[in-house]
Amino acid sequence: MKLVRVGKVGAERPGIIDAEGNIRDISSIVDDIDGTALSSQSLAELSAMNLDDFPRLDGDRFGSCISGVGKIICVGLNYVDHASESGFVAPKEPVLFMKASTSLCGAFDNVEMPVGGEKLDYEVELGVVIGKTAKNVSVENAAAHIGGYCVFNDVSERAFQLEGTGQWLKGKSCDTFGPCGPWLVTPDEVKDISNLDLQLTVNGELRQTANTRDMIFGVPELISYISRFMTLQPGDLIASGTPAGVALGMKPPVYLKPGDTMELSIEGLGQQKQTIV
Amino acid sequence: MKLVRVGKVGAERPGIIDAEGNIRDISSIVDDIDGTALSSQSLAELSAMNLDDFPRLDGDRFGSCISGVGKIICVGLNYVDHASESGFVAPKEPVLFMKASTSLCGAFDNVEMPVGGEKLDYEVELGVVIGKTAKNVSVENAAAHIGGYCVFNDVSERAFQLEGTGQWLKGKSCDTFGPCGPWLVTPDEVKDISNLDLQLTVNGELRQTANTRDMIFGVPELISYISRFMTLQPGDLIASGTPAGVALGMKPPVYLKPGDTMELSIEGLGQQKQTIV
Repeated sequence: MKLVRVGKVGAERPGIIDAEGNIRDISSIVDDIDGTALSSQSLAELSAMNLDDFPRLDGDRFGSCISGVGKIICVGLNYVDHASESGFVAPKEPVLFMKASTSLCGAFDNVEMPVGGEKLDYEVELGVVIGKTAKNVSVENAAAHIGGYCVFNDVSERAFQLEGTGQWLKGKSCDTFGPCGPWLVTPDEVKDISNLDLQLTVNGELRQTANTRDMIFGVPELISYISRFMTLQPGDLIASGTPAGVALGMKPPVYLKPGDTMELSIEGLGQQKQTIV
Repeated sequence: MKLVRVGKVGAERPGIIDAEGNIRDISSIVDDIDGTALSSQSLAELSAMNLDDFPRLDGDRFGSCISGVGKIICVGLNYVDHASESGFVAPKEPVLFMKASTSLCGAFDNVEMPVGGEKLDYEVELGVVIGKTAKNVSVENAAAHIGGYCVFNDVSERAFQLEGTGQWLKGKSCDTFGPCGPWLVTPDEVKDISNLDLQLTVNGELRQTANTRDMIFGVPELISYISRFMTLQPGDLIASGTPAGVALGMKPPVYLKPGDTMELSIEGLGQQKQTIV
Protein backbone atom coordinates (compact mmCIF):
# COMPACT_ATOMS: atom_id res chain seq x y z
CA MET A 1 0.00 0.00 0.00
CA LYS A 2 0.97 3.62 -0.56
CA LEU A 3 -0.32 5.63 2.37
CA VAL A 4 -0.57 9.39 2.15
CA ARG A 5 -1.66 12.43 4.10
CA VAL A 6 -3.33 15.05 1.92
CA GLY A 7 -4.55 18.54 2.70
CA LYS A 8 -3.47 21.86 4.14
CA VAL A 9 -0.77 22.05 6.82
CA GLY A 10 -2.16 20.69 10.06
CA ALA A 11 -5.39 19.52 8.43
CA GLU A 12 -4.14 16.57 6.39
CA ARG A 13 -6.45 13.59 5.91
CA PRO A 14 -5.29 9.99 5.60
CA GLY A 15 -5.52 8.26 2.26
CA ILE A 16 -4.39 5.33 0.16
CA ILE A 17 -3.39 5.40 -3.50
CA ASP A 18 -5.62 3.04 -5.44
CA ALA A 19 -4.80 0.95 -8.51
CA GLU A 20 -5.63 3.84 -10.83
CA GLY A 21 -3.45 6.25 -8.88
CA ASN A 22 -6.36 8.03 -7.25
CA ILE A 23 -6.30 8.88 -3.58
CA ARG A 24 -9.01 7.26 -1.46
CA ASP A 25 -10.05 8.86 1.82
CA ILE A 26 -9.63 6.35 4.64
CA SER A 27 -10.41 8.71 7.50
CA SER A 28 -13.40 6.50 8.35
CA ILE A 29 -10.92 3.72 9.20
CA VAL A 30 -7.90 5.49 10.71
CA ASP A 31 -7.58 8.92 12.32
CA ASP A 32 -4.27 9.63 10.68
CA ILE A 33 -1.24 7.91 9.15
CA ASP A 34 0.62 7.50 12.42
CA GLY A 35 2.03 4.79 14.65
CA THR A 36 -1.43 3.48 15.45
CA ALA A 37 -2.32 3.10 11.78
CA LEU A 38 0.87 1.09 11.23
CA SER A 39 0.12 -1.73 13.65
CA SER A 40 0.02 -5.09 11.92
CA GLN A 41 -3.68 -5.36 12.73
CA SER A 42 -4.42 -1.97 11.22
CA LEU A 43 -2.33 -2.68 8.12
CA ALA A 44 -4.07 -6.02 7.64
CA GLU A 45 -7.44 -4.30 7.91
CA LEU A 46 -6.44 -1.62 5.42
CA SER A 47 -5.04 -4.09 2.90
CA ALA A 48 -8.24 -6.15 3.03
CA MET A 49 -10.45 -3.21 2.08
CA ASN A 50 -12.00 -2.69 -1.29
CA LEU A 51 -10.77 0.80 -2.06
CA ASP A 52 -13.67 1.41 -4.46
CA ASP A 53 -15.85 1.69 -1.35
CA PHE A 54 -14.01 4.78 -0.18
CA PRO A 55 -14.52 8.31 -1.46
CA ARG A 56 -11.95 10.05 -3.61
CA LEU A 57 -9.76 12.45 -1.72
CA ASP A 58 -8.85 15.53 -3.65
CA GLY A 59 -6.22 17.88 -2.47
CA ASP A 60 -3.31 19.73 -3.91
CA ARG A 61 -0.81 19.12 -1.14
CA PHE A 62 0.88 16.06 0.32
CA GLY A 63 1.78 16.47 3.98
CA SER A 64 4.53 14.45 5.61
CA CYS A 65 3.50 10.85 4.95
CA ILE A 66 3.77 10.07 8.66
CA SER A 67 2.31 11.98 11.59
CA GLY A 68 2.79 11.73 15.34
CA VAL A 69 6.52 11.08 14.94
CA GLY A 70 7.97 10.63 18.42
CA LYS A 71 11.55 10.87 17.24
CA ILE A 72 13.63 11.09 14.11
CA ILE A 73 16.87 9.14 14.40
CA CYS A 74 19.37 10.03 11.73
CA VAL A 75 22.28 7.86 10.73
CA GLY A 76 25.39 9.79 9.78
CA LEU A 77 28.05 8.81 7.29
CA ASN A 78 26.35 5.57 6.27
CA TYR A 79 27.76 5.52 2.73
CA VAL A 80 31.54 5.26 2.40
CA ASP A 81 31.80 7.85 -0.35
CA HIS A 82 29.80 10.43 1.62
CA ALA A 83 31.88 9.90 4.76
CA SER A 84 34.97 10.51 2.68
CA GLU A 85 33.69 13.66 0.95
CA SER A 86 32.66 15.08 4.34
CA GLY A 87 36.16 14.67 5.72
CA PHE A 88 35.34 11.73 8.00
CA VAL A 89 36.48 8.14 7.92
CA ALA A 90 33.83 5.45 7.46
CA PRO A 91 32.46 4.71 10.93
CA LYS A 92 32.98 1.38 12.69
CA GLU A 93 29.52 1.64 14.24
CA PRO A 94 26.50 3.71 13.19
CA VAL A 95 26.72 7.44 13.95
CA LEU A 96 23.38 8.45 15.45
CA PHE A 97 21.92 11.88 16.03
CA MET A 98 18.46 13.35 16.21
CA LYS A 99 16.49 15.83 14.20
CA ALA A 100 13.52 17.63 15.75
CA SER A 101 10.16 16.23 14.64
CA THR A 102 9.02 19.81 14.08
CA SER A 103 11.27 19.82 11.00
CA LEU A 104 8.91 17.49 9.10
CA CYS A 105 7.02 18.79 6.09
CA GLY A 106 5.49 17.59 2.86
CA ALA A 107 7.35 16.26 -0.16
CA PHE A 108 6.57 19.32 -2.31
CA ASP A 109 6.57 22.02 0.36
CA ASN A 110 9.00 24.90 0.17
CA VAL A 111 12.16 24.59 2.25
CA GLU A 112 12.78 27.75 4.23
CA MET A 113 16.23 29.25 4.63
CA PRO A 114 16.51 29.86 8.39
CA VAL A 115 17.47 33.25 9.80
CA GLY A 116 21.25 33.42 9.64
CA GLY A 117 21.51 30.41 7.32
CA GLU A 118 24.30 30.43 4.73
CA LYS A 119 25.27 26.85 4.04
CA LEU A 120 22.05 25.07 3.18
CA ASP A 121 22.49 21.53 1.92
CA TYR A 122 20.44 18.51 0.85
CA GLU A 123 20.64 14.78 1.59
CA VAL A 124 18.46 12.20 -0.15
CA GLU A 125 17.81 9.32 2.23
CA LEU A 126 15.75 6.20 2.60
CA GLY A 127 13.32 6.81 5.46
CA VAL A 128 12.26 3.83 7.56
CA VAL A 129 9.16 4.18 9.72
CA ILE A 130 8.72 1.92 12.72
CA GLY A 131 5.47 -0.05 12.94
CA LYS A 132 6.03 -2.05 16.12
CA THR A 133 7.83 -1.24 19.37
CA ALA A 134 11.48 -2.32 19.20
CA LYS A 135 13.86 -2.66 22.13
CA ASN A 136 17.02 -4.76 21.95
CA VAL A 137 15.82 -6.56 18.83
CA SER A 138 18.14 -8.81 16.86
CA VAL A 139 19.15 -8.14 13.27
CA GLU A 140 17.16 -11.23 12.29
CA ASN A 141 13.96 -9.94 13.90
CA ALA A 142 14.36 -6.30 12.92
CA ALA A 143 12.31 -6.34 9.72
CA ALA A 144 9.15 -7.32 11.60
CA HIS A 145 9.27 -3.88 13.27
CA ILE A 146 9.05 -1.87 10.06
CA GLY A 147 5.81 -0.11 9.18
CA GLY A 148 6.90 1.46 5.91
CA TYR A 149 9.45 3.26 3.80
CA CYS A 150 9.59 6.72 2.28
CA VAL A 151 11.78 9.27 0.59
CA PHE A 152 13.34 11.66 3.08
CA ASN A 153 15.38 14.82 2.52
CA ASP A 154 17.64 15.41 5.52
CA VAL A 155 18.03 19.13 4.84
CA SER A 156 21.02 20.53 6.71
CA GLU A 157 22.62 23.88 7.46
CA ARG A 158 26.30 23.03 7.55
CA ALA A 159 27.50 26.05 9.52
CA PHE A 160 24.92 25.37 12.23
CA GLN A 161 25.81 21.67 12.14
CA LEU A 162 29.57 21.63 11.96
CA GLU A 163 31.01 24.98 12.98
CA GLY A 164 30.79 25.37 16.70
CA THR A 165 30.04 22.80 19.32
CA GLY A 166 30.51 19.44 17.60
CA GLN A 167 26.91 18.31 18.12
CA TRP A 168 24.97 18.23 14.84
CA LEU A 169 21.42 18.88 16.08
CA LYS A 170 21.34 22.62 15.38
CA GLY A 171 22.00 22.17 11.67
CA LYS A 172 19.31 19.55 11.21
CA SER A 173 16.21 20.74 13.02
CA CYS A 174 14.86 23.94 11.50
CA ASP A 175 11.26 23.96 10.31
CA THR A 176 10.89 22.44 6.80
CA PHE A 177 14.25 20.62 7.09
CA GLY A 178 12.46 17.27 6.82
CA PRO A 179 10.47 16.74 3.60
CA CYS A 180 8.97 13.29 4.05
CA GLY A 181 6.99 11.30 1.50
CA PRO A 182 4.92 11.71 -0.62
CA TRP A 183 4.02 8.07 0.10
CA LEU A 184 4.59 5.79 3.02
CA VAL A 185 5.09 2.48 1.23
CA THR A 186 4.37 -0.67 3.22
CA PRO A 187 7.08 -3.36 3.23
CA ASP A 188 5.08 -5.84 1.13
CA GLU A 189 5.42 -3.47 -1.85
CA VAL A 190 9.21 -3.28 -1.69
CA LYS A 191 10.96 -6.27 -3.21
CA ASP A 192 14.43 -5.64 -1.85
CA ILE A 193 15.09 -2.68 0.40
CA SER A 194 18.82 -3.18 -0.02
CA ASN A 195 18.67 -2.66 -3.76
CA LEU A 196 16.94 0.63 -4.50
CA ASP A 197 18.34 3.39 -6.65
CA LEU A 198 18.18 6.84 -5.15
CA GLN A 199 19.07 10.20 -6.60
CA LEU A 200 18.85 13.92 -6.14
CA THR A 201 19.18 16.83 -8.54
CA VAL A 202 19.53 20.55 -7.91
CA ASN A 203 18.07 22.75 -10.64
CA GLY A 204 18.07 19.68 -12.87
CA GLU A 205 21.76 18.90 -12.32
CA LEU A 206 22.44 15.43 -10.94
CA ARG A 207 24.18 15.71 -7.59
CA GLN A 208 23.55 12.40 -5.81
CA THR A 209 23.08 8.99 -7.32
CA ALA A 210 23.54 5.69 -5.52
CA ASN A 211 21.87 2.49 -4.47
CA THR A 212 20.84 1.43 -1.00
CA ARG A 213 23.15 -1.60 -1.38
CA ASP A 214 25.99 0.88 -0.82
CA MET A 215 24.96 1.49 2.80
CA ILE A 216 27.60 0.55 5.33
CA PHE A 217 24.94 -0.57 7.80
CA GLY A 218 21.76 -1.98 6.28
CA VAL A 219 18.24 -1.34 7.51
CA PRO A 220 17.94 -4.41 9.79
CA GLU A 221 21.33 -3.69 11.34
CA LEU A 222 20.32 -0.09 11.96
CA ILE A 223 17.06 -0.99 13.67
CA SER A 224 18.77 -3.60 15.83
CA TYR A 225 21.60 -1.25 16.73
CA ILE A 226 19.42 1.77 17.54
CA SER A 227 17.08 -0.37 19.65
CA ARG A 228 19.99 -1.09 22.01
CA PHE A 229 20.16 2.59 22.93
CA MET A 230 16.52 3.59 22.95
CA THR A 231 13.09 2.10 22.48
CA LEU A 232 11.75 2.63 19.00
CA GLN A 233 8.02 3.23 18.92
CA PRO A 234 5.46 3.01 16.13
CA GLY A 235 5.71 6.18 14.08
CA ASP A 236 9.38 6.80 14.82
CA LEU A 237 11.41 7.61 11.72
CA ILE A 238 14.93 6.46 10.90
CA ALA A 239 16.77 8.50 8.28
CA SER A 240 19.25 5.92 7.08
CA GLY A 241 22.00 8.15 5.71
CA THR A 242 22.93 9.82 2.46
CA PRO A 243 25.40 8.97 -0.31
CA ALA A 244 28.05 11.24 -1.81
CA GLY A 245 27.26 14.39 -3.73
CA VAL A 246 26.11 16.86 -1.12
CA ALA A 247 27.09 20.51 -1.48
CA LEU A 248 29.45 20.21 1.49
CA GLY A 249 31.52 17.74 -0.47
CA MET A 250 31.95 19.89 -3.61
CA LYS A 251 35.16 21.80 -4.13
CA PRO A 252 34.24 24.54 -3.57
CA PRO A 253 30.86 23.80 -1.96
CA VAL A 254 27.86 25.09 -3.89
CA TYR A 255 25.22 25.51 -1.21
CA LEU A 256 21.54 26.01 -1.89
CA LYS A 257 20.18 29.51 -2.33
CA PRO A 258 16.64 30.87 -2.54
CA GLY A 259 15.00 29.86 -5.79
CA ASP A 260 16.96 26.63 -6.14
CA THR A 261 14.93 23.49 -6.69
CA MET A 262 15.74 20.02 -5.35
CA GLU A 263 14.24 16.89 -6.90
CA LEU A 264 14.63 13.57 -5.10
CA SER A 265 13.58 10.05 -5.92
CA ILE A 266 13.96 6.54 -4.63
CA GLU A 267 12.99 3.57 -6.78
CA GLY A 268 9.42 2.53 -5.92
CA LEU A 269 9.02 5.14 -3.19
CA GLY A 270 8.16 8.15 -5.31
CA GLN A 271 9.55 11.60 -5.96
CA GLN A 272 9.91 14.86 -4.09
CA LYS A 273 10.47 18.42 -5.27
CA GLN A 274 11.19 21.44 -3.09
CA THR A 275 12.11 25.02 -3.77
CA ILE A 276 14.24 27.06 -1.38
CA VAL A 277 12.58 30.23 -0.13
CA MET B 1 0.68 25.51 41.05
CA LYS B 2 2.38 22.18 41.41
CA LEU B 3 1.07 19.90 38.66
CA VAL B 4 1.58 16.17 38.86
CA ARG B 5 0.82 12.93 37.05
CA VAL B 6 0.00 10.08 39.41
CA GLY B 7 -0.61 6.40 38.77
CA LYS B 8 0.84 3.34 37.13
CA VAL B 9 3.10 3.64 34.08
CA GLY B 10 1.00 4.65 31.10
CA ALA B 11 -2.11 5.22 33.21
CA GLU B 12 -1.16 8.38 35.09
CA ARG B 13 -3.90 10.87 35.95
CA PRO B 14 -3.40 14.63 36.14
CA GLY B 15 -3.46 16.33 39.51
CA ILE B 16 -2.60 19.45 41.47
CA ILE B 17 -1.05 19.62 44.93
CA ASP B 18 -3.41 21.53 47.23
CA ALA B 19 -2.52 23.79 50.18
CA GLU B 20 -2.42 20.83 52.54
CA GLY B 21 -0.14 18.83 50.25
CA ASN B 22 -2.89 16.51 49.05
CA ILE B 23 -3.21 15.64 45.39
CA ARG B 24 -6.46 16.70 43.73
CA ASP B 25 -7.67 14.89 40.61
CA ILE B 26 -8.16 17.40 37.80
CA SER B 27 -8.90 14.88 35.06
CA SER B 28 -12.35 16.48 34.70
CA ILE B 29 -10.60 19.66 33.52
CA VAL B 30 -7.56 18.49 31.56
CA ASP B 31 -6.84 15.15 29.87
CA ASP B 32 -3.24 15.12 30.98
CA ILE B 33 -0.39 17.40 32.05
CA ASP B 34 0.84 18.11 28.56
CA GLY B 35 1.36 20.99 26.19
CA THR B 36 -2.36 21.63 25.92
CA ALA B 37 -2.76 21.89 29.70
CA LEU B 38 0.05 24.46 29.80
CA SER B 39 -1.57 27.06 27.55
CA SER B 40 -2.04 30.37 29.32
CA GLN B 41 -5.81 29.93 29.08
CA SER B 42 -5.66 26.48 30.64
CA LEU B 43 -3.30 27.59 33.41
CA ALA B 44 -5.55 30.56 34.19
CA GLU B 45 -8.53 28.24 34.40
CA LEU B 46 -6.68 25.81 36.67
CA SER B 47 -5.43 28.53 38.98
CA ALA B 48 -8.93 29.97 39.38
CA MET B 49 -10.36 26.66 40.59
CA ASN B 50 -11.29 25.89 44.16
CA LEU B 51 -9.31 22.70 44.69
CA ASP B 52 -11.65 21.60 47.47
CA ASP B 53 -14.18 20.87 44.73
CA PHE B 54 -11.97 18.17 43.25
CA PRO B 55 -11.61 14.62 44.54
CA ARG B 56 -8.49 13.43 46.25
CA LEU B 57 -6.18 11.45 44.01
CA ASP B 58 -4.43 8.62 45.73
CA GLY B 59 -1.58 6.81 44.13
CA ASP B 60 1.80 5.58 45.09
CA ARG B 61 3.69 6.62 42.00
CA PHE B 62 4.52 9.91 40.34
CA GLY B 63 4.95 9.63 36.58
CA SER B 64 6.98 12.11 34.60
CA CYS B 65 5.38 15.46 35.46
CA ILE B 66 4.95 16.23 31.77
CA SER B 67 3.46 14.04 29.05
CA GLY B 68 3.31 14.34 25.29
CA VAL B 69 6.86 15.67 25.12
CA GLY B 70 7.65 16.34 21.49
CA LYS B 71 11.34 16.80 22.11
CA ILE B 72 13.90 17.02 24.88
CA ILE B 73 16.62 19.54 24.13
CA CYS B 74 19.62 19.18 26.38
CA VAL B 75 22.17 21.88 26.97
CA GLY B 76 25.70 20.58 27.39
CA LEU B 77 28.48 22.09 29.48
CA ASN B 78 26.37 24.97 30.79
CA TYR B 79 28.24 25.33 34.07
CA VAL B 80 31.93 26.32 33.86
CA ASP B 81 33.08 23.86 36.51
CA HIS B 82 31.33 20.92 34.82
CA ALA B 83 32.79 21.80 31.41
CA SER B 84 36.21 21.82 33.00
CA GLU B 85 35.82 18.50 34.84
CA SER B 86 34.58 16.88 31.62
CA GLY B 87 37.68 17.93 29.74
CA PHE B 88 36.00 20.62 27.66
CA VAL B 89 36.42 24.38 27.62
CA ALA B 90 33.41 26.51 28.51
CA PRO B 91 31.43 26.91 25.28
CA LYS B 92 31.02 30.25 23.51
CA GLU B 93 27.49 29.30 22.49
CA PRO B 94 25.10 26.73 23.95
CA VAL B 95 25.92 23.11 23.12
CA LEU B 96 22.64 21.44 22.11
CA PHE B 97 21.79 17.80 21.71
CA MET B 98 18.68 15.68 22.05
CA LYS B 99 17.55 12.91 24.28
CA ALA B 100 14.77 10.55 23.17
CA SER B 101 11.41 11.31 24.80
CA THR B 102 11.07 7.58 25.46
CA SER B 103 13.71 8.04 28.18
CA LEU B 104 11.27 9.91 30.43
CA CYS B 105 10.14 8.32 33.69
CA GLY B 106 8.91 9.24 37.13
CA ALA B 107 10.91 10.95 39.86
CA PHE B 108 11.06 7.83 42.04
CA ASP B 109 11.19 5.14 39.37
CA ASN B 110 14.10 2.77 39.15
CA VAL B 111 16.80 3.65 36.64
CA GLU B 112 17.71 0.64 34.51
CA MET B 113 21.29 -0.19 33.58
CA PRO B 114 21.10 -0.77 29.81
CA VAL B 115 22.46 -3.94 28.23
CA GLY B 116 26.20 -3.38 27.81
CA GLY B 117 26.21 -0.35 30.09
CA GLU B 118 29.31 0.21 32.24
CA LYS B 119 29.69 3.91 32.84
CA LEU B 120 26.35 5.05 34.19
CA ASP B 121 26.30 8.63 35.43
CA TYR B 122 23.90 11.22 36.84
CA GLU B 123 23.26 14.90 36.15
CA VAL B 124 20.92 17.04 38.23
CA GLU B 125 19.39 19.72 36.00
CA LEU B 126 16.75 22.38 36.01
CA GLY B 127 14.06 21.28 33.54
CA VAL B 128 12.16 23.98 31.66
CA VAL B 129 8.90 23.01 29.99
CA ILE B 130 7.59 25.13 27.13
CA GLY B 131 4.04 26.46 27.43
CA LYS B 132 3.72 28.47 24.23
CA THR B 133 5.13 27.96 20.73
CA ALA B 134 8.49 29.71 20.37
CA LYS B 135 10.30 30.46 17.12
CA ASN B 136 12.99 33.12 16.84
CA VAL B 137 11.96 34.69 20.14
CA SER B 138 14.09 37.37 21.75
CA VAL B 139 15.74 36.96 25.16
CA GLU B 140 13.36 39.62 26.47
CA ASN B 141 10.25 37.74 25.34
CA ALA B 142 11.48 34.26 26.18
CA ALA B 143 9.98 33.96 29.67
CA ALA B 144 6.44 34.28 28.30
CA HIS B 145 6.95 30.92 26.59
CA ILE B 146 7.60 28.94 29.76
CA GLY B 147 4.92 26.62 31.10
CA GLY B 148 6.75 25.33 34.15
CA TYR B 149 9.89 24.07 35.82
CA CYS B 150 10.92 20.71 37.24
CA VAL B 151 13.78 18.64 38.55
CA PHE B 152 15.38 16.55 35.83
CA ASN B 153 18.03 13.85 36.03
CA ASP B 154 19.89 13.66 32.70
CA VAL B 155 21.08 10.09 33.26
CA SER B 156 23.96 9.26 30.93
CA GLU B 157 26.03 6.28 29.90
CA ARG B 158 29.44 7.80 29.25
CA ALA B 159 30.87 5.03 27.10
CA PHE B 160 27.82 5.17 24.81
CA GLN B 161 28.00 8.98 24.83
CA LEU B 162 31.66 9.73 24.44
CA GLU B 163 33.54 6.71 23.16
CA GLY B 164 32.85 6.22 19.50
CA THR B 165 31.24 8.57 17.09
CA GLY B 166 31.32 11.97 18.75
CA GLN B 167 27.53 12.39 18.79
CA TRP B 168 26.13 12.15 22.33
CA LEU B 169 22.62 10.82 21.63
CA LYS B 170 23.36 7.15 22.29
CA GLY B 171 24.48 7.76 25.85
CA LYS B 172 21.43 9.83 26.74
CA SER B 173 18.39 8.06 25.41
CA CYS B 174 17.91 4.68 27.08
CA ASP B 175 14.60 3.98 28.80
CA THR B 176 14.48 5.48 32.34
CA PHE B 177 17.35 7.89 31.58
CA GLY B 178 15.02 10.85 32.17
CA PRO B 179 13.46 11.02 35.66
CA CYS B 180 11.30 14.13 35.50
CA GLY B 181 9.39 15.74 38.35
CA PRO B 182 7.77 14.97 40.72
CA TRP B 183 6.10 18.35 40.21
CA LEU B 184 5.77 20.66 37.27
CA VAL B 185 5.89 24.03 39.02
CA THR B 186 4.31 26.95 37.21
CA PRO B 187 6.44 30.11 36.83
CA ASP B 188 4.33 32.20 39.24
CA GLU B 189 5.56 30.00 42.10
CA VAL B 190 9.25 30.53 41.36
CA LYS B 191 10.60 33.83 42.65
CA ASP B 192 13.89 33.84 40.77
CA ILE B 193 14.74 31.01 38.40
CA SER B 194 18.34 32.22 38.28
CA ASN B 195 18.85 31.74 42.00
CA LEU B 196 17.90 28.20 42.94
CA ASP B 197 20.12 25.78 44.82
CA LEU B 198 20.39 22.33 43.30
CA GLN B 199 22.10 19.22 44.56
CA LEU B 200 22.53 15.52 44.07
CA THR B 201 23.76 12.76 46.34
CA VAL B 202 24.71 9.15 45.62
CA ASN B 203 24.13 6.76 48.51
CA GLY B 204 23.88 9.81 50.75
CA GLU B 205 27.22 11.28 49.66
CA LEU B 206 27.01 14.79 48.26
CA ARG B 207 28.25 14.80 44.66
CA GLN B 208 26.75 17.90 43.05
CA THR B 209 25.87 21.19 44.69
CA ALA B 210 25.43 24.47 42.86
CA ASN B 211 23.05 27.30 42.13
CA THR B 212 21.32 28.10 38.85
CA ARG B 213 23.05 31.49 38.95
CA ASP B 214 26.19 29.62 37.92
CA MET B 215 24.76 28.75 34.51
CA ILE B 216 26.77 30.14 31.61
CA PHE B 217 23.60 30.71 29.58
CA GLY B 218 20.48 31.52 31.58
CA VAL B 219 17.00 30.19 30.88
CA PRO B 220 15.78 33.12 28.73
CA GLU B 221 18.98 33.03 26.67
CA LEU B 222 18.58 29.29 26.15
CA ILE B 223 14.98 29.54 24.97
CA SER B 224 15.83 32.39 22.62
CA TYR B 225 18.88 30.59 21.27
CA ILE B 226 17.22 27.21 20.75
CA SER B 227 14.24 28.84 19.06
CA ARG B 228 16.56 30.07 16.29
CA PHE B 229 17.28 26.48 15.29
CA MET B 230 13.93 24.78 15.80
CA THR B 231 10.39 25.64 16.80
CA LEU B 232 9.73 24.91 20.47
CA GLN B 233 6.24 23.61 21.08
CA PRO B 234 4.12 23.38 24.23
CA GLY B 235 5.27 20.35 26.17
CA ASP B 236 8.85 20.41 24.87
CA LEU B 237 11.43 20.05 27.63
CA ILE B 238 14.75 21.86 27.92
CA ALA B 239 17.32 20.24 30.21
CA SER B 240 19.43 23.26 31.06
CA GLY B 241 22.72 21.61 31.96
CA THR B 242 24.44 20.20 35.01
CA PRO B 243 27.07 21.55 37.41
CA ALA B 244 30.30 19.82 38.44
CA GLY B 245 30.42 16.63 40.42
CA VAL B 246 29.39 13.94 37.96
CA ALA B 247 31.09 10.55 38.12
CA LEU B 248 32.87 11.24 34.83
CA GLY B 249 34.71 14.11 36.51
CA MET B 250 35.98 12.12 39.50
CA LYS B 251 39.55 10.86 39.51
CA PRO B 252 39.10 7.98 39.06
CA PRO B 253 35.44 8.04 37.99
CA VAL B 254 33.05 6.25 40.33
CA TYR B 255 30.18 5.28 38.06
CA LEU B 256 26.79 4.10 39.28
CA LYS B 257 26.20 0.41 39.86
CA PRO B 258 23.08 -1.60 40.59
CA GLY B 259 21.78 -0.86 44.07
CA ASP B 260 23.12 2.70 44.16
CA THR B 261 20.63 5.40 45.06
CA MET B 262 20.53 8.93 43.67
CA GLU B 263 18.72 11.74 45.45
CA LEU B 264 18.22 15.04 43.68
CA SER B 265 16.65 18.32 44.70
CA ILE B 266 16.14 21.81 43.41
CA GLU B 267 14.97 24.59 45.73
CA GLY B 268 11.17 24.92 45.44
CA LEU B 269 10.88 22.24 42.76
CA GLY B 270 10.93 19.14 44.94
CA GLN B 271 13.04 16.05 45.32
CA GLN B 272 13.73 12.87 43.38
CA LYS B 273 15.12 9.51 44.41
CA GLN B 274 16.05 6.64 42.11
CA THR B 275 17.75 3.29 42.56
CA ILE B 276 19.85 1.67 39.86
CA VAL B 277 18.62 -1.77 38.82
